[in-house]
Amino acid sequence: MILVLEKGLGQYGEREVLAKLDALGVIGQLGRLYTDTVVVIESDVATKPTHIFSQIEGVSKVLRIGQSYPKVLEHKESTVKLERVVIGGGAKPIIIAGPCSVEGLDQLLQLADGVKSVGASILRGGAFKPRTSPYEFCGLQEAGLAYLKEASRNTGMPVVSEVMSEKQIEAAHDYVDIFQIGARNMYNYELLKEVGRTNKPVLLKRALSATIDEFLYAAEYVMLGGNNQVILCERGIRTFETKTRNTLDLSAVPILKSLTKLPVIVDPSHATGKRNLVRSMSRAAIACGADGLMLEVHQNPSKSISDAEQAISVEDLALINSDLEALYQALQIMDAPNTSAKNAGEAKITESVEGQPIEGQLVLSGSAIS
Amino acid sequence: MILVLEKGLGQYGEREVLAKLDALGVIGQLGRLYTDTVVVIESDVATKPTHIFSQIEGVSKVLRIGQSYPKVLEHKESTVKLERVVIGGGAKPIIIAGPCSVEGLDQLLQLADGVKSVGASILRGGAFKPRTSPYEFCGLQEAGLAYLKEASRNTGMPVVSEVMSEKQIEAAHDYVDIFQIGARNMYNYELLKEVGRTNKPVLLKRALSATIDEFLYAAEYVMLGGNNQVILCERGIRTFETKTRNTLDLSAVPILKSLTKLPVIVDPSHATGKRNLVRSMSRAAIACGADGLMLEVHQNPSKSISDAEQAISVEDLALINSDLEALYQALQIMDAPNTSAKNAGEAKITESVEGQPIEGQLVLSGSAIS
Amino acid sequence: MILVLEKGLGQYGEREVLAKLDALGVIGQLGRLYTDTVVVIESDVATKPTHIFSQIEGVSKVLRIGQSYPKVLEHKESTVKLERVVIGGGAKPIIIAGPCSVEGLDQLLQLADGVKSVGASILRGGAFKPRTSPYEFCGLQEAGLAYLKEASRNTGMPVVSEVMSEKQIEAAHDYVDIFQIGARNMYNYELLKEVGRTNKPVLLKRALSATIDEFLYAAEYVMLGGNNQVILCERGIRTFETKTRNTLDLSAVPILKSLTKLPVIVDPSHATGKRNLVRSMSRAAIACGADGLMLEVHQNPSKSISDAEQAISVEDLALINSDLEALYQALQIMDAPNTSAKNAGEAKITESVEGQPIEGQLVLSGSAIS
Amino acid sequence: MILVLEKGLGQYGEREVLAKLDALGVIGQLGRLYTDTVVVIESDVATKPTHIFSQIEGVSKVLRIGQSYPKVLEHKESTVKLERVVIGGGAKPIIIAGPCSVEGLDQLLQLADGVKSVGASILRGGAFKPRTSPYEFCGLQEAGLAYLKEASRNTGMPVVSEVMSEKQIEAAHDYVDIFQIGARNMYNYELLKEVGRTNKPVLLKRALSATIDEFLYAAEYVMLGGNNQVILCERGIRTFETKTRNTLDLSAVPILKSLTKLPVIVDPSHATGKRNLVRSMSRAAIACGADGLMLEVHQNPSKSISDAEQAISVEDLALINSDLEALYQALQIMDAPNTSAKNAGEAKITESVEGQPIEGQLVLSGSAIS
Repeated sequence: MILVLEKGLGQYGEREVLAKLDALGVIGQLGRLYTDTVVVIESDVATKPTHIFSQIEGVSKVLRIGQSYPKVLEHKESTVKLERVVIGGGAKPIIIAGPCSVEGLDQLLQLADGVKSVGASILRGGAFKPRTSPYEFCGLQEAGLAYLKEASRNTGMPVVSEVMSEKQIEAAHDYVDIFQIGARNMYNYELLKEVGRTNKPVLLKRALSATIDEFLYAAEYVMLGGNNQVILCERGIRTFETKTRNTLDLSAVPILKSLTKLPVIVDPSHATGKRNLVRSMSRAAIACGADGLMLEVHQNPSKSISDAEQAISVEDLALINSDLEALYQALQIMDAPNTSAKNAGEAKITESVEGQPIEGQLVLSGSAIS
Repeated sequence: MILVLEKGLGQYGEREVLAKLDALGVIGQLGRLYTDTVVVIESDVATKPTHIFSQIEGVSKVLRIGQSYPKVLEHKESTVKLERVVIGGGAKPIIIAGPCSVEGLDQLLQLADGVKSVGASILRGGAFKPRTSPYEFCGLQEAGLAYLKEASRNTGMPVVSEVMSEKQIEAAHDYVDIFQIGARNMYNYELLKEVGRTNKPVLLKRALSATIDEFLYAAEYVMLGGNNQVILCERGIRTFETKTRNTLDLSAVPILKSLTKLPVIVDPSHATGKRNLVRSMSRAAIACGADGLMLEVHQNPSKSISDAEQAISVEDLALINSDLEALYQALQIMDAPNTSAKNAGEAKITESVEGQPIEGQLVLSGSAIS
Repeated sequence: MILVLEKGLGQYGEREVLAKLDALGVIGQLGRLYTDTVVVIESDVATKPTHIFSQIEGVSKVLRIGQSYPKVLEHKESTVKLERVVIGGGAKPIIIAGPCSVEGLDQLLQLADGVKSVGASILRGGAFKPRTSPYEFCGLQEAGLAYLKEASRNTGMPVVSEVMSEKQIEAAHDYVDIFQIGARNMYNYELLKEVGRTNKPVLLKRALSATIDEFLYAAEYVMLGGNNQVILCERGIRTFETKTRNTLDLSAVPILKSLTKLPVIVDPSHATGKRNLVRSMSRAAIACGADGLMLEVHQNPSKSISDAEQAISVEDLALINSDLEALYQALQIMDAPNTSAKNAGEAKITESVEGQPIEGQLVLSGSAIS
Repeated sequence: MILVLEKGLGQYGEREVLAKLDALGVIGQLGRLYTDTVVVIESDVATKPTHIFSQIEGVSKVLRIGQSYPKVLEHKESTVKLERVVIGGGAKPIIIAGPCSVEGLDQLLQLADGVKSVGASILRGGAFKPRTSPYEFCGLQEAGLAYLKEASRNTGMPVVSEVMSEKQIEAAHDYVDIFQIGARNMYNYELLKEVGRTNKPVLLKRALSATIDEFLYAAEYVMLGGNNQVILCERGIRTFETKTRNTLDLSAVPILKSLTKLPVIVDPSHATGKRNLVRSMSRAAIACGADGLMLEVHQNPSKSISDAEQAISVEDLALINSDLEALYQALQIMDAPNTSAKNAGEAKITESVEGQPIEGQLVLSGSAIS
C-alpha cells in the first residue's frame, strides 16, 4: 500500500502521519517522488480496511497494490475431495453433468445412470432455478432436492445444486453434496457468507460482469467463513458478441491457476449457449488446464424444460469424455517433468501473472491494440 | 409467440400441435414461411412458461416476440409518493442525497440538514454496505439504521437504504422508507420477491451487466409480489472504458420511459466514480428526462469512509440543485403542449421504441457501424 | 515516466542506467520503493519512444504515467472556425445536419434548404459510404461530392463528408470544407496522417472500441501533421446492450473537455440508431457541454437509402433546434460567473479528471461496484 | 429476406409491391402474421442492396435473415497454400512466428533461423507498425521489408507482414508472401478492396470490436476483388477484463469453421498481451480446431522494441511446438472416423451453428444468464 500525502504537508505533518500509522501498528517509510511525497507501507495490510488510512489527516490518496484476498492467495490445498472424487491438484479432470432443471424422478434417475456410464463423476441438477422471467419454470424446489438425493444414492455420485438464499441452503443441506452459487449471485455477499459457514464444498460461478479480481474476492468471502472447499467455475462473460450466449474467457483458467491453488472448472454450456459449440470448447478448456467440466445433459436435449439450446445428449457426453481422456494423456506428455523442453520453459510458465502488479496497473503502452 | 414446427411434420402432425395448444386454452394459426411452417400464437402468453410450448411434440423452437413483463408494461401509475415527495409523473425531478455509508450519528444529522437545505428531498445512507473486499468497512448495520431514522425524524425527509438479504429487510423495515436493491443484487430473485411482499417503495438499481430487458424483468419480480412502487435507477454499465468507474447509459432513460410508467432516476456518482463528472452528468440526466438524481454527498468528500473519489460536497450539491431548477424550467418550455413545434413532433417522440420488436430483433443492417 | 530496475542490479548497474539516460539528454533520479528500485524521470519524455528506455540494460519495465499526446493537451485554441461558423469556445452549440448518403442533387438541395431553415449551420452528407456489407449502397462517389458543393454554394453552409483513403482525400479536397474520419477509420493512422497534412478541419469520430486515450492519440496523429483544426465526435461505443445500436458515452464529453481545448460534438443518430431516441440524447449532449450535434436528417426518414432507422425529419430537427436554444439559455444561467453558487463550485469543476493519473490507475478500491 | 408492409396497405397496395419486386426480377410471396402482412422473398437477394427493397412504396421495414457474405459461405477450398506450407483443410496446424517489429537484419536472420529450427513454417515481422502513439517506433519501413525478404531467402520460409495503405501494399508487394490486415484496419474497406485485387494470400485479423458477422463481411470485401486466399485470425476482442490485453474469444474458432471453409488461426500473443499466458492459450486454440498459431517471438523478449510484455523466447516456442505435436496426435484420435463414439456424434457436430438463423435472432429466452 502507498499513501500519497497532501501537498505542502511539511515535515511536521509528515511526522504526524507516521505517528498515526505507528498507533495502528503499521510501519511506513517516507518516499519522495518527482511530484509527490508518499508513505510506502511495509506491514501487511491486506486485511485492513482502506478507510483507516484514507481518513488520516494529511493523506490525500490510498493506493492498494496487489490483491487483498489473502485466503485465496495463500490457500495450500489444491484439491477438493468428495469421497472418491478428487477435483484439482493435477488429477484427471472431472465431469459434472446432468440436466439444467430436475424435471422428475424418472428423468433424473435415468439421466444419472446415463451420465455416469459415460464418465461423469458428479451429478448436477437444478432444484431452485433462477430465471430472468418470473413466469418461467423455477424448478421443482424441495421435491427436486429429494430426487437428487435418490439419484445420488442410486449411482453413488455426489450431487451439486444451486442455492440462492439462506432458506434454500437450509432446505438443500441434507440433500446435496456441493452448493452451487450461480453467476447471478456471485456478488450476493450475504449468501457467500452463509455458504462459507457450512461444511460443504462450494462451486462458485463467475458473474457475467465480474473481473477476475472480483471473482476471487467472492471466493475470499466464502473462505473467510471457514470453508476452504471452493471450486471456481468460469462460465462466460458478457460482451458485444451475440453468436454465443456469453463469451467464454478461457484465459481466466491459467490466470486463476497462477493466483490460487483452488480448483478451476469450466462450464461451456452456459458460456456458449449452443450445443454444437460445447464439444469444441470442452476440448479447449481441458487443454488450457481446467480441472473439470460442468455440462448440461438431457435425454432429449431440445425438449429440456430450461436451456434447451445448450443441452447435449448422453451420446455427446460420451464423445467429450473420450476427448478428455485423449487430451489428458497428451497433457501428461506435454507437462512431463523429464521432458527437457518442459524444463526450459518451467520458469516462464510458473512466473506469476500477478507477480508485478504495480507494473500491470501502471503501464500506458503505446501499442494497446493491433 | 411463434412456434417453429419440425420439418416434415405433415398435416396430421400439425393438427396434433394445434389440438394440444387448444387443450392449453391457447389459440394459434398455421403460417407457412419460405423454409418453415410456424404456428403464430394469437392468445396472450406473456405469463405462460416457455417450456409448455417447447415440449409439445412437433415443435422445434419457440420464439418469444416482445417482452414478457406485463406488470411493468401495463402499470398505470406514473408516480411513487412518500408523504410530500412525489417521484415521476412529470413532477420536478427530485434529489436523493446523503453519504455512501452512515458513519456516525453526528455526521449524518449534520449532513441531512445540509443536503435538505440545498434541495434534497430524500436522504440516502448505507447501513449495510456491499463491499467487493470482505475486509472493507461493511456499514454500521443496525446502528446505522437507527441513525437514519433519527435523521429522518429531524428533517422530515424519507430515507432510502440498501438491503441485501431477507434478514436485513426485517431489520430495516421500521427504520427506512424506501428499500434499495443495489446493482449487485438486481439478479437476486429471492430478494426481489421479498421486497415485493413489503409495502414500501423499492429503488431498484440496474446491474452492471444487465440489459434493459433484464432490468425490467427484475422490476416484474418485485411487482409480481404485489408491490408496484418501483423506482428504476440507471447507474452505469460495465464496458471497456476505464476513465470512468462504469459507463453511464443515459439512453436507457428514454428507452425505459417508453416501455413503462415507473419513475426512472439516475445515479451519476456510481456511474462515473469521479466527483468532477457528477455535475455534468446530473445535467445530462435531467435534460433527457430523468425523474430524479441519486447523489453521494459528504461533509469532507475525500475523507468519506467509502467511495471517497465520487462523493461531492454540500456546496456542489447546491450547484446541481440550481442546475436542476434551470433545466426544469427549460424543459417546461421545450415540452410545452402549445408549442407548435412540439405538436409536430409529438408522434415521433411517443412512438414506442419497442413497438415493433420483431423488426428490431431481425434486421441485419448493412451499416452497423460508422 | 518511471523505470523499474532489475533486481540486484547494484550500485554500479544503477549508475550505468543513469549514465545512459544522461547520454539521451534525460534527467532521472533514483528512488527506492519497498520492493523495487526505480528511476523517476524528471525530463519531458512524452514524445520519446518507450523502447529507448526499455532497451537500456538493467531496466526491467517502463511505466508511462499520464498521456503522451502533448499537442492535444497543450493546444491553446478552443474553436474551429469556418467563415461565419464557430465551433467550440463557449459559442452556441452548432448543428451539423443532412442525409446519411447523398442520394441525388434534388434531394440534397431541398434537404440543405430544409435543415438550414431550422437552424443547421453545417451540411453533412456521405459521398463515399463505408458499409459493413460490400453489396450495400456505397455512395454516389464523385457525383455526390459535386452535389455537396452545389448545396454548399446554394445555402452558404460549409459541408462535411467522410473520406476513407488518400485518393478520396484528393477527390474531395475541392468539394468539402471539413473532412470526416469515420469511426471505422479512427485507427487508420496512415489516413490520419494524410488529413493532418491538409489545411481543412477534420471531424474525428471515436471508434466503437476506442478508449478516450486512443481517441486522443488519433487526434495527436492529425495534429502532428500540422493540422490543429480537429473536432472530436463522440458517437457511441460497443457494449452488450442491444436496444441501441451503440451505447452513447456522454461522460466522454466532460472528460474530453477536461483534457483538451479541442471542440467536442456528439452524434446521437449513430449512437442510438433509433430516431425516437435522438431528441432526448441531443438534449443530454447539449446539457453536459457538447459544442454541437451531428444529426442524420432525411425528407422521408424511413425511405433513406442508408441508416433509415435513425434518420429524423426536418420537423424533428426544428424541435431539436428549439431545445438547443432553450438549453443554451439555461446553460448561460447555470454557468454565469456572477452566480455565487458557481464560484463556490469552480474549483471542483475545473479540477482535471486526469490531474493525478497515477492514483486513478493504481487504486484498487474495495467497492468497485454497488 | 422478409418485407414488412405498411399497415392498411390493402390488396391493391400489396399487388403494387409484388409488381415492383417482379420488375426487379425478385419473387416474393405474401404472408399474414398476427399483426402484420409480410412478403417473404424466395429469390436469392444476398448481394442485392437493402435500399432497393426498403424504398418500395408500401414497404415499412426490410428484414434480412441470415448472412449476406456469399463468397465466404460458399467458398469451396479449405486450404491456403504457399509452396510447401499448407494452412487449413485438416493439415497439421502451422506456426507463424517472428518479432513484433523487424529491428535489424542480424536480429531477424538469427530469429528466423531460431523459429524455423523449432517448428515455425512462416515468418512474421512488422515493417510498418501501427502504434497507438505517433511517438512510438513505427517500424523500419522499406528497410524492414528488405530484411524480411532476405530472411525468407535464407530460410525458405514465406513471410507475412502488415500493410496499412495502398502505398504500403505496393511497397511490400515484392517482399512479402502474405499481406496482413491488422485488427485496426479490419473495417478499412478501401484497404480490403486493394488487397483483394492482389494475388497474394491475406491474413485478416478480427477487429477489437468486430462481431463475427462483421469479420466475415470484411473477408467478403477481400474475396469480392477476386482474391480467395483469406486466412482468418482471431486475436481477442475488447471487454471489461483488464488482466489480459484483450479477451481471446476461442468460441469464434468453431463458429467460423461452421460458417466458412477459410482457414482460421489464432494469435494468443496479442489476445492475452502476457507472455506467461501464451502457451496455455496456444494449447486451447489447437484443441478447439485452429489451423495455426501466430506468435510473437524475440531473442530477448523483454527487450523487444514493441510489445515486449507478450513476446516469448525461441525456447518457449519450442515448447509450444511440442505441445502442438502432442495435441495434433490427440486430435487425430478424437476425430478419427472409425471411432464409434465419433460416428454417434457426427450429426451433432456438423449441425451448422447458423443453420436456423431466424431462431437464433428471435428467441427471447427466459433464462439468459445463470
